[in-house]
Amino acid sequence: MSRYFTEALFTDLYELTMAQAYHAEAMNEPAAFELYFRSLPEHRNFMVAAGLDDVLGYLEDLQFDQSDLDYLRTVGEFSDAFLQRLAEFRFRGQVEAVPEGTVVFPNEPLLRVVAPILDAQVVETFVINQVHFQTLAASKAARVVLAAHGRKVVDFGSRRAHGTDAALKVARAAWLVGAAGTSNVLAGKLYGIPIVGTMAHSYIQAHDDEAEAFRAFAELYPQTTLLVDTYDTLEGVRKVIDLCRRSDEDVRLRAVRLDSGDLAELARRTRAMLDEAGLGHIRIVASGGLDEYKVAALREAGAPIDAFGVGTKMVVAADAPHVDFAYKLVEYAGEPRTKLSTKKVLYPGRKQVFRRMAHGKFAGDTVGRDDESLDGQPLLEPVMRDGWRLPAGNISLADAREHAREQLDRLPEALRRLDEVAPGYPVSISPRLERELRKLS
Amino acid sequence: MSRYFTEALFTDLYELTMAQAYHAEAMNEPAAFELYFRSLPEHRNFMVAAGLDDVLGYLEDLQFDQSDLDYLRTVGEFSDAFLQRLAEFRFRGQVEAVPEGTVVFPNEPLLRVVAPILDAQVVETFVINQVHFQTLAASKAARVVLAAHGRKVVDFGSRRAHGTDAALKVARAAWLVGAAGTSNVLAGKLYGIPIVGTMAHSYIQAHDDEAEAFRAFAELYPQTTLLVDTYDTLEGVRKVIDLCRRSDEDVRLRAVRLDSGDLAELARRTRAMLDEAGLGHIRIVASGGLDEYKVAALREAGAPIDAFGVGTKMVVAADAPHVDFAYKLVEYAGEPRTKLSTKKVLYPGRKQVFRRMAHGKFAGDTVGRDDESLDGQPLLEPVMRDGWRLPAGNISLADAREHAREQLDRLPEALRRLDEVAPGYPVSISPRLERELRKLS
Repeated sequence: MSRYFTEALFTDLYELTMAQAYHAEAMNEPAAFELYFRSLPEHRNFMVAAGLDDVLGYLEDLQFDQSDLDYLRTVGEFSDAFLQRLAEFRFRGQVEAVPEGTVVFPNEPLLRVVAPILDAQVVETFVINQVHFQTLAASKAARVVLAAHGRKVVDFGSRRAHGTDAALKVARAAWLVGAAGTSNVLAGKLYGIPIVGTMAHSYIQAHDDEAEAFRAFAELYPQTTLLVDTYDTLEGVRKVIDLCRRSDEDVRLRAVRLDSGDLAELARRTRAMLDEAGLGHIRIVASGGLDEYKVAALREAGAPIDAFGVGTKMVVAADAPHVDFAYKLVEYAGEPRTKLSTKKVLYPGRKQVFRRMAHGKFAGDTVGRDDESLDGQPLLEPVMRDGWRLPAGNISLADAREHAREQLDRLPEALRRLDEVAPGYPVSISPRLERELRKLS
Repeated sequence: MSRYFTEALFTDLYELTMAQAYHAEAMNEPAAFELYFRSLPEHRNFMVAAGLDDVLGYLEDLQFDQSDLDYLRTVGEFSDAFLQRLAEFRFRGQVEAVPEGTVVFPNEPLLRVVAPILDAQVVETFVINQVHFQTLAASKAARVVLAAHGRKVVDFGSRRAHGTDAALKVARAAWLVGAAGTSNVLAGKLYGIPIVGTMAHSYIQAHDDEAEAFRAFAELYPQTTLLVDTYDTLEGVRKVIDLCRRSDEDVRLRAVRLDSGDLAELARRTRAMLDEAGLGHIRIVASGGLDEYKVAALREAGAPIDAFGVGTKMVVAADAPHVDFAYKLVEYAGEPRTKLSTKKVLYPGRKQVFRRMAHGKFAGDTVGRDDESLDGQPLLEPVMRDGWRLPAGNISLADAREHAREQLDRLPEALRRLDEVAPGYPVSISPRLERELRKLS
């Protein structure tokens, strides 16, 4: 499996019908499209940008192959001349973007594509699909990581992710924002993420006796984690203690895992039993229906849990499974463009985000025109030129992870809370941008 | 792109560590795993099974290639003997399942895998991932289709789906349960689904003048749908009417699309304007933030909308983005198995679902042992034998769609409501199954 998805037909049909119209009308001028979200979903004080690497990998290798063109011919809407244009299509445009792992807020462009309008248009569906979902996933995982206050978080969500791509991208996004690993082996292979996991209930069930299952597993994996809740959790812990007492020195179990019941109470009793048995080195992993709220509650209750396996609710971002992302035309043929149909304001022209710092924390952002010189650090930087990645578009996942860590460290304390805070992070619009919007209204 | 995903490493690490343990312990006996969900998510009265075709396609071609084995070697947990066993791995087991498009309820097995325990175990993650998500998606889409009462529903959700796989599978699942098409071109190519779509706001914005954009587009596509809400919706409709009056007879537009604002009111005013202009043949398509509740409200308000483009909320199943699906060991080496740790009951042994009919509608189900003869039609049927698909595992999507239509027709009226109804559909457990559970407790 190649690391990047590059299927040109992963696009909404209207991208191609519009593209043919641009072609027929000889509209070949450069267009600038910007990707941003309009508002934070409920329960969110910030988002963490992700998905850029997949966008750039796609743009680098995108082409319509013969079977794509054959299929499009059957649709009956496309001329031979246009299909020939698609056969020759290669993305040779410019991309500017905020680095993956950057904390972002509403109305801030995360990414801008500048290319002949046909080229910038046909990539819309995939660009939104990846940046929307990966940003959603990174933002949810960042909340879980923050809630864990330095205890390990691992992604256990692959089975309940929305398909295979989502499972892989959540594993990557969670690692990006500080998770310790994932259960998904393919994510480990593709992204170099640590992979974790030992046993499920089925292994215990397949043996006639739980103690015998523990013994057999520990013999093969002397430093493993044993799952103790298949029948009765504390009885399972007793069997683990018994196993450690009878075993030779090779068995030095790493942990037990609790996957059901009152996790705080069971963790306390398990910890006491293990400590009393002189097994203070055995750690406690908790899993089963966890999300950032439950992780925070367990931590606040003082539950002696060393690591959290987080699955379903993180992997589908259950409390905010979509964000209002849009990829909008802001300039065509050198002229700023807007759209005024509703209360959704679209600021015209190419923009930049300027972020100010105070006492080591983010203090406020201003969105201005990209050629303005405003107070603060500009967030968008060139990542692709003429279809080729620039160094800033070729960041390793490890470096992106370090960047995300710094970003989360710089988040104002109030925004790190799990509940929404008012008034939230200050994002202002530059006076020049406001004037240019009024000019077009 | 091949139609089926067959990456063997798309699995949780623990499937492989358990597999190595089964191998080391010479546990080669057949195991039966059943896939089911424990309870309906909120707002649901039924679910529609989907995902079987992808499971069977995966099982047919699954293998660990050299790069997979090389990666697993780097993990440091796997012996050469076990890696050799994986190199030779081919799935040669049996699968029984309910056909795609079948209406299903809690505690009813949707699918059973019977194979040597190693083989049945390593496929768990993918099997749950696909059946969980596709069933979720089909069930959500079925609600939208029911809410539309025969008006067209099309899937516009690719950009907000959770990754590429989710977008494709939602397009397929929506079509399965009666949607009229999808905007996703690749889904059209892969699954033979009708694809739809014409223009976005960016096309209008890229032109200096909306009327000019309409004219240029209609010249190229004389039977197209024009998007009228980029600036002012009713002004947009006036421009469409004007275009039709000035154009020669070639232009016979199919529809206008409303994508924002008060859709019911705008649809009424648009309909009146079009009718008054003698353009009664031009239909009205609505989109923008729709789900089954909004579709039902628009229909109940008598809004003259002919087709609904449904995106984000359907594609992420926003009100129920996960279901409590499990793939559980129910038999090993001929012995029924259960698991008793929590209030989650697992009925032991291989099961069948028997569905009774009354007056052409589903009247009640009984879950029994697979060798029981109970009243009603058995739902699970053999779909794969020794790793090869049987005819019942090789149903065309068109036939599955027809099956789904019949199933939805047979749903009791009360269950077709959008809100949860009590007491819900009756599913009972056979006395024999209850006895066998007690025996193991």
